[in-house]
Amino acid sequence: MLTLVLGGARSGKSRHAEELLAGMPAPWIYLATGQAWDEEMRARVAEHRARRTEGWQTIEVPVTLADELDEAGDRPVLVDCLTLWLTNLLLGDHDVEQAVSRLMAALGRRQVATVLVGSEVGMGIVPENALARRFRDEAGLLHQRIATIADRVVLVVAGLPLVVKG
Amino acid sequence: MLTLVLGGARSGKSRHAEELLAGMPAPWIYLATGQAWDEEMRARVAEHRARRTEGWQTIEVPVTLADELDEAGDRPVLVDCLTLWLTNLLLGDHDVEQAVSRLMAALGRRQVATVLVGSEVGMGIVPENALARRFRDEAGLLHQRIATIADRVVLVVAGLPLVVKG
Amino acid sequence: MLTLVLGGARSGKSRHAEELLAGMPAPWIYLATGQAWDEEMRARVAEHRARRTEGWQTIEVPVTLADELDEAGDRPVLVDCLTLWLTNLLLGDHDVEQAVSRLMAALGRRQVATVLVGSEVGMGIVPENALARRFRDEAGLLHQRIATIADRVVLVVAGLPLVVKG
Repeated sequence: MLTLVLGGARSGKSRHAEELLAGMPAPWIYLATGQAWDEEMRARVAEHRARRTEGWQTIEVPVTLADELDEAGDRPVLVDCLTLWLTNLLLGDHDVEQAVSRLMAALGRRQVATVLVGSEVGMGIVPENALARRFRDEAGLLHQRIATIADRVVLVVAGLPLVVKG
Repeated sequence: MLTLVLGGARSGKSRHAEELLAGMPAPWIYLATGQAWDEEMRARVAEHRARRTEGWQTIEVPVTLADELDEAGDRPVLVDCLTLWLTNLLLGDHDVEQAVSRLMAALGRRQVATVLVGSEVGMGIVPENALARRFRDEAGLLHQRIATIADRVVLVVAGLPLVVKG
Repeated sequence: MLTLVLGGARSGKSRHAEELLAGMPAPWIYLATGQAWDEEMRARVAEHRARRTEGWQTIEVPVTLADELDEAGDRPVLVDCLTLWLTNLLLGDHDVEQAVSRLMAALGRRQVATVLVGSEVGMGIVPENALARRFRDEAGLLHQRIATIADRVVLVVAGLPLVVKG
């Protein structure tokens, strides 16, 4: 069961994703892609961490997402989030196409619940910054690719899921 | 009956909200949070005002939203919009958390139709401006909180409501 | 049958629109409004073009959309996209209201399948740039007007259609 949870900023997408996994037997693996570059990000990471009760095992994985998914084996996994992972790839000058291909392959090998969180970033005005345009293009394409193999896709609005697939 | 009407810029969310109330007996209270800071805003306020026929009583309420909701008593109310109210709180350096708590309490006391309009502002690229980031975070959190107590939540797209709850 | 296909950047809206027409007998008319101003745009136009197989007749129509719709007669038409057409109108200092009125009239005369693609650009933070604000207002208003006469309106998310109407 592969679920893609999309949503805007502060839409409640992470909380919704956590609730999806909470119905499964613990332990749950939390693959955290966000890096605490600054105070704002540190506060957000701390807030997310405080919300997760026991039963969660958090692993920081800024880049090697495919490897960690394989490593998780038959334990339920939450990836939060694809968007920060893409950011890390772009800022670290990694090969995005190769990394995404490896992610898709790893997702194909998963036999248990996997929930992927992604930010919807493409519904505003075209950004003036070229890197921002590249980023939102890559994010949109990644969401499309994952959606083709996902069992369920939801768009979270004000904390509530709009079912797009499944 | 509490309804949260979300939508992007020029999505037709205000018009949809007005139509929701028009099914109830007049008079309807229109709590207008927008302040006509500039020509663009003045034009928009005038356009909204021109659309509302008799039966509407407009009250300008940039900040004290909870008080005016209590004041409205058993008359149907439309709040247009939460987003400008949040803007006024942030620019006026008010205590957002306290103001939101008071709003939630006032909404809990309402016995008749209340329609709240909010702008969806979190589906674009992360803004470079720190105040803009704070604003879209506060807007997202506010929408989530109201959605938990709302009977109905819709996302207006091209003038048409996508039902998210209710 | 008039269909409005909305979606964010790289949401898969063009591909979804093409698939809608592919169920009809060829030839299909592709009215391409995008102008290859720069390398990025040229690459995108080339990618879209490469995807379209035989059966498609591509006509570049940066401005005179109503005329070309009339010209297409009883052949199925895909307009990709309204957003770039609006951009061309604004940058070329054309009369937007008049052009939109002529488009609406031409759509009213269509007797066969017509699919219009538009970008959802109004769900981010208010742009600081006045032209960008004008553009997103015009885009929102245009989508609303077309939605009132459309048989079907969808919002494409991660390549999948959320049905808003029809």
